[in-house]
Amino acid sequence: MKKYIFLIFQIFGITSASVVVAQSYQVQPIPFNQVSIEDGFWSPRLKSHSLNTLQTCIHQTRDSTERINNFKKAAGLLEGQHQGIYFDDSDVYKAMEGIAYSLINNPNPEYEKLLDDWISYIAKSQQADGYLNTFYTLNHPDERWTDMEKHEMYCGGHMIEAAIAHYQATGKKSFLDVAVKFADYLDDTFGPGKQHWVPGHEEIELALVKLYHTTENKKYLDLARWLLEERGHGHGKGGIWESEWGPAYCQDDVPVSEIADIKGHAVRAMYLFTGMADVASEMNIPEYVDALKRVWEDVTQRNMYVTGGIGSSRSNEGFTEDYDLPNKTAYCETCASIGMVFWNNRMNLLSKDAKYVDILERSLYNGVLSGVNLEGNLFFYVNPLESDGDHHRQRWFGCACCPSNISRFVPSIGSYIYLKNDNEVFVNLYIGNEANFKLANTNVHLTQKTNYPWDGEIAISIDPETSVPFNLKLRIPGWCKSFGASLNGKTIEVSSIEDGYLSIERKWAPGDKIALSLEMPVELIKADDRVAENKNKRAVQRGPLVYCVEQIDNATTNIDEITISRNNIFTITQGEGKLNNMKVLTTTDKANKLTFIPYFAWDNREPGKMEVWINYKNQSSLYTN
Amino acid sequence: MKKYIFLIFQIFGITSASVVVAQSYQVQPIPFNQVSIEDGFWSPRLKSHSLNTLQTCIHQTRDSTERINNFKKAAGLLEGQHQGIYFDDSDVYKAMEGIAYSLINNPNPEYEKLLDDWISYIAKSQQADGYLNTFYTLNHPDERWTDMEKHEMYCGGHMIEAAIAHYQATGKKSFLDVAVKFADYLDDTFGPGKQHWVPGHEEIELALVKLYHTTENKKYLDLARWLLEERGHGHGKGGIWESEWGPAYCQDDVPVSEIADIKGHAVRAMYLFTGMADVASEMNIPEYVDALKRVWEDVTQRNMYVTGGIGSSRSNEGFTEDYDLPNKTAYCETCASIGMVFWNNRMNLLSKDAKYVDILERSLYNGVLSGVNLEGNLFFYVNPLESDGDHHRQRWFGCACCPSNISRFVPSIGSYIYLKNDNEVFVNLYIGNEANFKLANTNVHLTQKTNYPWDGEIAISIDPETSVPFNLKLRIPGWCKSFGASLNGKTIEVSSIEDGYLSIERKWAPGDKIALSLEMPVELIKADDRVAENKNKRAVQRGPLVYCVEQIDNATTNIDEITISRNNIFTITQGEGKLNNMKVLTTTDKANKLTFIPYFAWDNREPGKMEVWINYKNQSSLYTN
Repeated sequence: MKKYIFLIFQIFGITSASVVVAQSYQVQPIPFNQVSIEDGFWSPRLKSHSLNTLQTCIHQTRDSTERINNFKKAAGLLEGQHQGIYFDDSDVYKAMEGIAYSLINNPNPEYEKLLDDWISYIAKSQQADGYLNTFYTLNHPDERWTDMEKHEMYCGGHMIEAAIAHYQATGKKSFLDVAVKFADYLDDTFGPGKQHWVPGHEEIELALVKLYHTTENKKYLDLARWLLEERGHGHGKGGIWESEWGPAYCQDDVPVSEIADIKGHAVRAMYLFTGMADVASEMNIPEYVDALKRVWEDVTQRNMYVTGGIGSSRSNEGFTEDYDLPNKTAYCETCASIGMVFWNNRMNLLSKDAKYVDILERSLYNGVLSGVNLEGNLFFYVNPLESDGDHHRQRWFGCACCPSNISRFVPSIGSYIYLKNDNEVFVNLYIGNEANFKLANTNVHLTQKTNYPWDGEIAISIDPETSVPFNLKLRIPGWCKSFGASLNGKTIEVSSIEDGYLSIERKWAPGDKIALSLEMPVELIKADDRVAENKNKRAVQRGPLVYCVEQIDNATTNIDEITISRNNIFTITQGEGKLNNMKVLTTTDKANKLTFIPYFAWDNREPGKMEVWINYKNQSSLYTN
Repeated sequence: MKKYIFLIFQIFGITSASVVVAQSYQVQPIPFNQVSIEDGFWSPRLKSHSLNTLQTCIHQTRDSTERINNFKKAAGLLEGQHQGIYFDDSDVYKAMEGIAYSLINNPNPEYEKLLDDWISYIAKSQQADGYLNTFYTLNHPDERWTDMEKHEMYCGGHMIEAAIAHYQATGKKSFLDVAVKFADYLDDTFGPGKQHWVPGHEEIELALVKLYHTTENKKYLDLARWLLEERGHGHGKGGIWESEWGPAYCQDDVPVSEIADIKGHAVRAMYLFTGMADVASEMNIPEYVDALKRVWEDVTQRNMYVTGGIGSSRSNEGFTEDYDLPNKTAYCETCASIGMVFWNNRMNLLSKDAKYVDILERSLYNGVLSGVNLEGNLFFYVNPLESDGDHHRQRWFGCACCPSNISRFVPSIGSYIYLKNDNEVFVNLYIGNEANFKLANTNVHLTQKTNYPWDGEIAISIDPETSVPFNLKLRIPGWCKSFGASLNGKTIEVSSIEDGYLSIERKWAPGDKIALSLEMPVELIKADDRVAENKNKRAVQRGPLVYCVEQIDNATTNIDEITISRNNIFTITQGEGKLNNMKVLTTTDKANKLTFIPYFAWDNREPGKMEVWINYKNQSSLYTN
């Protein structure tokens, strides 16, 4: 049936097929190829992505490093050994996934040709048995599957994701065939009665579920589950087991159903949980869901920065003790925040509970977006919440997972806005767009207009082809404590907000209009007192955005010495220069004017100190809010 | 000069002269005769006032009680003794003051004729020496000035205020002549080398300052100061000294310059402080100002309800211990809240500090407005913060100070919106209106459009005859922690908020437009833990309005058992029925829908329980706002 739809698209010259998403959840994302973004906040970012981020990835993987050449060498088109890090193939795949996504909404023959060329190198690099990894093939052909840490399945998973994206974008099967051959090889090699294997860096699991949805071949789903079940039984291989981190570093210390505490490498954990959710939804595994809910509490209530960033330690790129959340040395890898978006998206799909979108949104607008500059060509790998002025975005990294992850994440943003099933449409994110989707055989056109996150006014028009009954569920963000809503100009009587959504159930008719007004005051956020470094400090937040002070705006003040209180009044004002399409906040401390800018926008101008958590002076009062 | 201006008005057939306000403050209110209110919130109240409140006062003083007849009797037009309470004359005066104010903006020959008639009775009741008090004249002619508690000067003060209002409204001196004769009699009788006297209920002091401004005769100001200085030296007379309350009940325990702690009867204290501020500003008495600032801290930080109401005890109609603020037995006399408006207005005039307007606004929108129903014809004397359903507004009271105070206060609301001096214009309250005033010889037309207090959007147009430089100072209310402002469409860079005002200094030109956007979220207000009854409770506030729950909206719930937390999300929705021009708030508690209505609007529908302070459940979270 899915293939038939692809065929239809191709017959009518539409190269973009429906973007594959996990389809056995009780509710599905409306994929980004059905969502056309026109938004003051996101459109410039999408433009920066297609102009600069993709070019950077192409330049860096092809021209400035050996990543593409590694494939050419493995393909026999160039002489020489693999150069670089053993997981460098994955950056090529993620860049390709980003390029493919950009093709879906912005056809571009040059990019399509580039993908064709690269796919030809990749296909030729694939071994006869289906194995594909340039590091091993070129440098250690006899040592496949000897070290869980070597990212063989991680690279393969990204290859599968890129191949599916290419297939969706172009309808061509050239790359997908490679992916299927690789997955079949894995299935031939690993599984019950075959070889044991625990991948040191998760990713393959969620990729195999995507491949199952694309091909409808259930063996990939079974393999994904088997790989999950391999964990925690001593099947890991390689030096990592003897390292200071031990098996917990790669979530191989306990069976996945028993996970309760967050441990180890942050990105790996996020990808594991994403895969677990995908498998749990397909195969109905309540123990997985229970484990995910337990560890979600542990992550979000004891181990997450206010930016939605996770993994406080540089040493293991991951988690340490509960409440150990230092600011200056915060690791908060960009990829880990992207992982938080993936995982929380899946938790929301599993539960239809908006609390997961609250975290998704926190990570998205702060931890993820800080990972790339406004032009889209400089990147943070590490996203601290405080800086002495010596931490800056880079053009690329030896370990380049973050830029390439940004390259594939940003163009997919449209997929996070809506969910639907036969009788419900969920609005999760407030981003200006036009969406077209089918609901119980009725074509529905839905538009959002908003200045979010700069204000909380959202206008939604619902235009079904003909009247159609459904439950429209508008997310009331967790940061929002009061809001108003109207339908066709009449105030909506809200009986309750269930699981974070305002439900409007009715027969929707063409021309129906919703106005949602989310009160978006500046808030001073307090951390649990057990976060030692933030005692007597506050973070400034407005809507989903965490703000920070940067030295450049506060020249006369030593920003370490800034103190605020409940009495501070913040002026919401339009930014200037590079920040000219943002709202910045100003206030005063002892006659010094202070300027707070969105955290994601820091280090876009002059280098200097930065701080999220600000000294706070308690002011006693008969009545306080 | 002032008389000359009045003459000009009269020549051109304008009967309304400038309303007299304390003129030696460094900044002056723009009086309400220069401020035409057209406002969604206040216009209906002004209409209710002129339709119903005044009619109620006329009916009650003239037809249903002996108040007017007491004057007729004292005038020799009727036979008989004084009937009623010894201070009943004051209700007539306050009703007359209200009628006169209404004439200023709404000329009405019938009301003018009624005042003429009543003034004729009053004039005839005045004794040859100037003394005027129907209780003593009719019942105890030989006992004048034997008991400080008997309100002789209190009644006289209200007579003076009414006479000035009548003069301002009509230009006629018939009533003013009576007032001057009375004041001259006081000045002949009391003062240095003459009789000692401490009025048991303050009021005369502020009235004498008003009379000084009206007549420019400084002896009235001197007498006001002398009366203030009489206090605290054992000059009080009458049984009150031996009562359980002692001299502190009427602020006669310490000299006024030494006042530090709030004590005694709440209304008396407010009128005293108002008079002290007036005298301090005229005569430059820093010790008065210091005392006022000390006691202001004591009132607002330890002895004030969240509604801005004061005086927790029914027993003394006044103050008790610090933090003794019970909800169900809260006294919070309506007159005391009106007194808070008077006093805080004066403190603001003294200091140009908006913190006093924050309190004024709190008392005004909650403690004062709760004192009258929406139709303007039923009144609270006592304004508790919790009710079992047995507390209701009345048509009138034996002691009717509150209805008559409402009758003169409401039509004066326009005087609280703006202050000005030669180079500053302060916008203190956000109320839709058109104001016309002179600034450095330039006529300035200023308009405000707003839905305040239902939202925080305010549009101000400034149209001077010709361009004129001044500092426009917009109050950023204390409840408001974040706002945006623009001038002619361009965001305003705010360097600081000084004393609660956003200053915009420029040469203002015709057509200049300001947009002010005050973020107005629903807030959960916490009381100091020393307020025993509010421990583990929260009050719901939005903008200046305190909200409450009433049984009628929450039929399925025992409102005593309602519990809220930080997780509650409030929907801001349009009220229905009698509340149809208000915003009500809804939320849920354990699947029960809860409705919060503005506190001032309670007991306007079916009788039932009411509560301001709601049980609160603390929800721990890694990050809280």
